[in-house]
Amino acid sequence: MKIDFNCDMGESFGSWNMGNDSQIIPYITSINAACGFHASDPVVMNRTVRLAWEAGVQIGAHPGFHDLTGFGRRQISTTPEEAYTDTLYQIGALHAFVKAHGMSLQHVKPHGAIYNMAAKDKTLAKAICQAVWDFDPSLIILALPAGELYRTAKEMGLRAAAEVFADRAYNEDGTLVSRSTPGSMITDADIAVNRVIRMIKEGKVTAITGKDIDIRADSVCIHGDGAHAVEFAGMIRERLLKEQIDIVPLNEIV
Amino acid sequence: MKIDFNCDMGESFGSWNMGNDSQIIPYITSINAACGFHASDPVVMNRTVRLAWEAGVQIGAHPGFHDLTGFGRRQISTTPEEAYTDTLYQIGALHAFVKAHGMSLQHVKPHGAIYNMAAKDKTLAKAICQAVWDFDPSLIILALPAGELYRTAKEMGLRAAAEVFADRAYNEDGTLVSRSTPGSMITDADIAVNRVIRMIKEGKVTAITGKDIDIRADSVCIHGDGAHAVEFAGMIRERLLKEQIDIVPLNEIV
Amino acid sequence: MKIDFNCDMGESFGSWNMGNDSQIIPYITSINAACGFHASDPVVMNRTVRLAWEAGVQIGAHPGFHDLTGFGRRQISTTPEEAYTDTLYQIGALHAFVKAHGMSLQHVKPHGAIYNMAAKDKTLAKAICQAVWDFDPSLIILALPAGELYRTAKEMGLRAAAEVFADRAYNEDGTLVSRSTPGSMITDADIAVNRVIRMIKEGKVTAITGKDIDIRADSVCIHGDGAHAVEFAGMIRERLLKEQIDIVPLNEIV
Amino acid sequence: MKIDFNCDMGESFGSWNMGNDSQIIPYITSINAACGFHASDPVVMNRTVRLAWEAGVQIGAHPGFHDLTGFGRRQISTTPEEAYTDTLYQIGALHAFVKAHGMSLQHVKPHGAIYNMAAKDKTLAKAICQAVWDFDPSLIILALPAGELYRTAKEMGLRAAAEVFADRAYNEDGTLVSRSTPGSMITDADIAVNRVIRMIKEGKVTAITGKDIDIRADSVCIHGDGAHAVEFAGMIRERLLKEQIDIVPLNEIV
Repeated sequence: MKIDFNCDMGESFGSWNMGNDSQIIPYITSINAACGFHASDPVVMNRTVRLAWEAGVQIGAHPGFHDLTGFGRRQISTTPEEAYTDTLYQIGALHAFVKAHGMSLQHVKPHGAIYNMAAKDKTLAKAICQAVWDFDPSLIILALPAGELYRTAKEMGLRAAAEVFADRAYNEDGTLVSRSTPGSMITDADIAVNRVIRMIKEGKVTAITGKDIDIRADSVCIHGDGAHAVEFAGMIRERLLKEQIDIVPLNEIV
Repeated sequence: MKIDFNCDMGESFGSWNMGNDSQIIPYITSINAACGFHASDPVVMNRTVRLAWEAGVQIGAHPGFHDLTGFGRRQISTTPEEAYTDTLYQIGALHAFVKAHGMSLQHVKPHGAIYNMAAKDKTLAKAICQAVWDFDPSLIILALPAGELYRTAKEMGLRAAAEVFADRAYNEDGTLVSRSTPGSMITDADIAVNRVIRMIKEGKVTAITGKDIDIRADSVCIHGDGAHAVEFAGMIRERLLKEQIDIVPLNEIV
Repeated sequence: MKIDFNCDMGESFGSWNMGNDSQIIPYITSINAACGFHASDPVVMNRTVRLAWEAGVQIGAHPGFHDLTGFGRRQISTTPEEAYTDTLYQIGALHAFVKAHGMSLQHVKPHGAIYNMAAKDKTLAKAICQAVWDFDPSLIILALPAGELYRTAKEMGLRAAAEVFADRAYNEDGTLVSRSTPGSMITDADIAVNRVIRMIKEGKVTAITGKDIDIRADSVCIHGDGAHAVEFAGMIRERLLKEQIDIVPLNEIV
Repeated sequence: MKIDFNCDMGESFGSWNMGNDSQIIPYITSINAACGFHASDPVVMNRTVRLAWEAGVQIGAHPGFHDLTGFGRRQISTTPEEAYTDTLYQIGALHAFVKAHGMSLQHVKPHGAIYNMAAKDKTLAKAICQAVWDFDPSLIILALPAGELYRTAKEMGLRAAAEVFADRAYNEDGTLVSRSTPGSMITDADIAVNRVIRMIKEGKVTAITGKDIDIRADSVCIHGDGAHAVEFAGMIRERLLKEQIDIVPLNEIV
């Protein structure tokens, strides 16, 4: 039994700091590095890749909308051509730092609003997958297993990895409960850890309605910027090891 | 006897058009494609690479300062780390489109203010060359032969190509006469063409002082946005062929 | 009988030119000046205000989404707080140039995607009107008469002016037919002019369904960037004068 | 005896936080609010003005270079037209929020690189002062008393206020010792406070060479983002009150 641990990193920008990258990185196996559109800048990207290189952690591109002010969390109406070229541009920019460190890019995970939009909109999902394919067909797409991006990646012959969230409630169809809905966030750390273990071992999670649903888990997303993020990362890691679940990067799973 | 013809391309941005790319491209052998910092955007970059692919023309990255308003022509005080990472980022972004078209990147030519600053500042020149080296040591640096960037590229073991300008006057040390100095621009097309031929055949040009100086010419830069740009490109091309000088891309020269 | 003629202006940006401002301005009575978010920059804004000052034309702010790449035409999900503060920021920025020329701001007309969104979304309309009110309650809102922005402005006690389009087809509810629908654009200049005259004189227009609908016209929007824009502006002006309709700025109408 | 206390505020941007504005504001009398070019955004600007309004503190515009990545600290070669229009734009944008709160703008203090460049370059100083004058000739320019911006403001008939720094060493000509020079920062809080008191009471400060020089102090700049910033602000305030120096906003001093 194996699982990948991923965390969004490199979200500082210019003189502004965000996250606790160097403290979180010992606990994880894959990072999603911001590419300068919704966060990060070339200096931050280079330092983030160096951090991953030093920690022996795998790197994925985390492309987002070109919207620093909105941190890529605002939906922007986007043509397939824009989605395709934005994705290609950001993967390429990050890849340059990865290549300069003698590493390879492992995966691509869209960020924020485009992650959610691509889970629902097949046209957008196709444009993003095509960009990944055209850059390097061996790259893994990391996405919500119940969404269009995951399905489309598989249909196109790309490797797709299923991402689950320790701290989010699920609808019966496997989509995430909107943050604005009461009960959308799992705040009790013990409950969160138990849900993760069950998703990995049994492939099941209890939806917000109380009904058990099937779910596939290749990677667990850890958030790096909360007050207890580091502590929580350690707690999950410890419990997984106790349950004899191997924590390995995505490219050893899919 | 061989020469490359290069032209800055892909300088449109969003809804704003610039240049006559599709009309100029039949006359040239290499393009310098803007990378989104001083001009261009992902959609424009993809279309520009496609244009070069269709025309069978070689592609170089044209990284500039992150200053759309100033079109990369304003000097910005820059640390070596910023110059290194800005260069790597932009090369990588363009490379993604080149790779998606099944092509290879041929060269890197810094744009505008950073081109001029790197010609005078060895630290900056080193940072840029290091970025090129770390991305791909087989890339060619296209630069002013009398400047630090050209010298540094050679010292570091990179291939360096010497760029000359048909329409600019030279100082005795081989640097360009500043645009603000009277006589800095060669406006007579016949004189300009004769100067180019002499630079290629004899390795000589008459400086603004009247003295003949040595100059090396691997590539002639054509400007694509003037009123007579297309006509002038055709005129040079015709004359070069008449003089039995082969017009070939940079990678067949250096 | 009176009508205002308005045109979007100051849409150049940095080294990129757009529109034929100096040729169109003799025909119109009010300009909508871009404020640096979707187009323009401080240098362009200053020159645009100077142009209006020299021509004796009234000035309105034309605030848009902060999206240069998309020219403010892409819908961006926006909170009321963001809509309020974006509007206030852009009005203030433009007002500084207007004040420096000893002029007063006449009106505010949202641009592109936010213009359309505010016509349908009352919350957004309120946020924008509140920003206008808080800056200067004597400013006029220029908007689609069938939309929420127009209605909300009136409800809040702001002066609202009804904008009509010479070259666009209307639905039966007075909204514009989407550009993607066949027949959405009126391309015959004579028909377009006749429609404008009828909207002003009779307050009627034939919808795309063939049915006549009521419409209020305080201002006709002229587009400045088409091939025949200048010619068309002259044609409408001539016909209006012939019909003894006075062409005066908005602040003499509402 | 009177002195103003100023602090740079509103330097957060989008999802990134900076500074301790709400904790520092009780100790000061004037804020310099970032205007969206080097830091801040419309939402942050509105909240910053609200904070000042609630605290009864005066507001100044803090215009900087359009360089979020460099936080306005990188020198950018700038024409007088650009300096004039950038200043006007940013003053206007901030003024909109000030006006919406029923307040008046008190002063303008350029930020970072443009502050230092305007202290040395009379042409730049003139362009900035002209923008302030054209917007509102009653605004105060807050600047280094030994610099060109301060002198030019006075020559043009603007009110100029002399800014001193508690934590910086001075050269004999009254300019600041560059941050890269050893000894440029006064790290001992007691020494810093004593220097401030002497600058106010005697108009003297000991330069880095050991020689006493004349210095005028209308306002002391407090930095808001250090670890001990809040504590230090309290300490200076307490000592000033003990010395019976009134702490009042700039507009009660110059």
